[in-house]
Amino acid sequence: MLTELGKKAKEAEKTLMIATTEQKNKALKYIAQALIENADEIIQANTIDLENGKNNGMSEAMLDRLKLDKGRIKGMAKGVEDVVLLPDPVGRVLSETTRPNGLNIKKVSTPLGVIGVIFEARPNVTSDAAALCLKSGNTVILRGGKEAINSNRIIAKTMREAVKKSGLSEDVIQLVEDTSRESANALMQMNEYVDVLIPRGGAGLIQAVVKNATVPVIETGVGNCHIYIDKDANVDMAADIVYNAKTNRVSVCNAAESLLIHKDIAKEALPKIKAKLDEKSVELFGDEEAVDIAKGIEKATERDWGTEYLDYKMSVKIVNSLDEAVDHIYKYSTGHSECIVTENKEAAEEFLNKVDSAAVYVNASTRFTDGGEFGFGAEIGISTQKLHARGPIGLPELQSFKYKIYGNGQVR
Amino acid sequence: MLTELGKKAKEAEKTLMIATTEQKNKALKYIAQALIENADEIIQANTIDLENGKNNGMSEAMLDRLKLDKGRIKGMAKGVEDVVLLPDPVGRVLSETTRPNGLNIKKVSTPLGVIGVIFEARPNVTSDAAALCLKSGNTVILRGGKEAINSNRIIAKTMREAVKKSGLSEDVIQLVEDTSRESANALMQMNEYVDVLIPRGGAGLIQAVVKNATVPVIETGVGNCHIYIDKDANVDMAADIVYNAKTNRVSVCNAAESLLIHKDIAKEALPKIKAKLDEKSVELFGDEEAVDIAKGIEKATERDWGTEYLDYKMSVKIVNSLDEAVDHIYKYSTGHSECIVTENKEAAEEFLNKVDSAAVYVNASTRFTDGGEFGFGAEIGISTQKLHARGPIGLPELQSFKYKIYGNGQVR
Repeated sequence: MLTELGKKAKEAEKTLMIATTEQKNKALKYIAQALIENADEIIQANTIDLENGKNNGMSEAMLDRLKLDKGRIKGMAKGVEDVVLLPDPVGRVLSETTRPNGLNIKKVSTPLGVIGVIFEARPNVTSDAAALCLKSGNTVILRGGKEAINSNRIIAKTMREAVKKSGLSEDVIQLVEDTSRESANALMQMNEYVDVLIPRGGAGLIQAVVKNATVPVIETGVGNCHIYIDKDANVDMAADIVYNAKTNRVSVCNAAESLLIHKDIAKEALPKIKAKLDEKSVELFGDEEAVDIAKGIEKATERDWGTEYLDYKMSVKIVNSLDEAVDHIYKYSTGHSECIVTENKEAAEEFLNKVDSAAVYVNASTRFTDGGEFGFGAEIGISTQKLHARGPIGLPELQSFKYKIYGNGQVR
Repeated sequence: MLTELGKKAKEAEKTLMIATTEQKNKALKYIAQALIENADEIIQANTIDLENGKNNGMSEAMLDRLKLDKGRIKGMAKGVEDVVLLPDPVGRVLSETTRPNGLNIKKVSTPLGVIGVIFEARPNVTSDAAALCLKSGNTVILRGGKEAINSNRIIAKTMREAVKKSGLSEDVIQLVEDTSRESANALMQMNEYVDVLIPRGGAGLIQAVVKNATVPVIETGVGNCHIYIDKDANVDMAADIVYNAKTNRVSVCNAAESLLIHKDIAKEALPKIKAKLDEKSVELFGDEEAVDIAKGIEKATERDWGTEYLDYKMSVKIVNSLDEAVDHIYKYSTGHSECIVTENKEAAEEFLNKVDSAAVYVNASTRFTDGGEFGFGAEIGISTQKLHARGPIGLPELQSFKYKIYGNGQVR
């Protein structure tokens, strides 16, 4: 059954790979339109998922993620329309060279092929991921969580019909309706038909994919982000940045989770930062020095340093040097986003060079690690691995390349 | 034990990541020099491997691959010296943008980190891989086959001492001395310390790595390469290209394994091509049509179409159209290198666009898929996957990137 779906995806990819920008944009416009037209039907299906969720004791936060209404469906359609406006990443000549023997070698961007997107309970991921994959010439196999299966089924059906109406094969978008663990594992090992897997969700999902997949994976999303306050920091700026990075939206991967402060500035900076964080009742977990400096900080345990709280909580450590901050980050970071607050340009460069994370900031909130904020237009996730894509995954990152080589009879 | 080695590699990477080009080139020069100086000792160790190989019934071809003499060691040293001359791929600004909010975002190339290279019985891979990794700022963990362990041990020791003498940490080059299957599997799952795995060897080794690894893999090397003779081909050119691609060196991944001929030209082309291949006694395995056209062609079985012979053997199929050729390639190719021979520019472009392989040729031998021939200077293998690297893997492909972001207090 899943094999059949994989075969169809691979077959559909043959034509999508060489589809024109116009064909793909037409399909996207039809999808956006169809989502609006079918809004009632989608909401009806979503109501069943919500009821099942409530009966299964799903948390309010989860139910909110799952919920679709007219406004949210409009948002999904708008998201698809926005992708129409993005430049087509396929077929760009990335480099060109002519060798002494006359061979002309062009390196040209090509779609990755068939992309498996494995996600959890947010049904808007179906249209997001499908639109980005379609525009970048990739067939997508969507595999969402069972919590959203009724919503996903009708959204996928809506999109497939729209794509078919536009003249492309409906099989460029596919949904795995079997939400069992076995089907997820089978998808992760379908090397013959799937070129890349992109998991979107929490740490548990991502680890399961990394562990079980034989298909290449782009790991996404887990962010234990650090902010280091250097001894030469502007303390007011530091407080603003930490406040924003921690509290602007606590449930996202680019939120800051850990604060490192140079000992020379800690007595001045920590109380100020804490006062700011108190406005949102952020709980702090600190090392001994931090606990001594400011009242109301709980003692941190080893576990705190490695925790992505995704909550109004933050760990605090006082460090003796920039290098100690870098070493701490090396040990506990997930390689997502880190920041130094400093007025010292040398310290800034040292931090930028030594910290091995996808996005390294000087004097700005880690919350900017985002495809939209980077000017990519959209993103399918944020990669925390170093192979292929790092940081926000936009359309160019959904490309591979091939070499087109023009000869006139050359042999070796 | 392996964990200890991984920890050391990760620690050494911290300094190698930010080492200057001069420091890395100095280390490479010392390595080249030390290989020459220790040639006798290396040959002595290699003799033990050769004797063990003979006692274990190793084939002549394998023994030849394993064997080191003064000439080959000079070649290894020369290979390392050549890497000195290649441009340093680290720290290049790949793109730069300033956002409306004033954030300056620089995308900068960075080393991948710790690279695990898993290979078989060719001891020269140790110095090849180590030199390329070092120049590109990557710590390498080498894990060669047990057949070459004595040679590898002394080569790795020689290189490590040279690196240490140059002032860098010797731990930027490490050898896994335990050649058990367990140690290989442990390396493949050491996600905490290894960023990327590159297997170098036959299909069996590569499949084992793809199957067992949780660390991201760059798949290399298996090439079931096709040459399609279009109806508008220059038949003499076709014969020369097929002859070269098949017989220039049969044991390599860019050798051609399968011949597809358009039916309209088959009666003219096949006998000419066969006559040329007869010079090297190449055995042909054909479909019914091919068998009918030329004498001395054996009937192919389904298995032939998917076989990388690595021998003086080739499969032949007569096709009704370019699209049939493309479909056949889609089904059986490993995505390495394919070629169309044609004088028709439209057919050429169609083939280039529709065939989804790393290197797609018009009128040239598939044997050119090679880092040296592409002008990369050197390669660590040829990727047949679409994620990250495709085709010859040179120094730029041994890079990841990070975003360096300069702000002045920006928050969201």
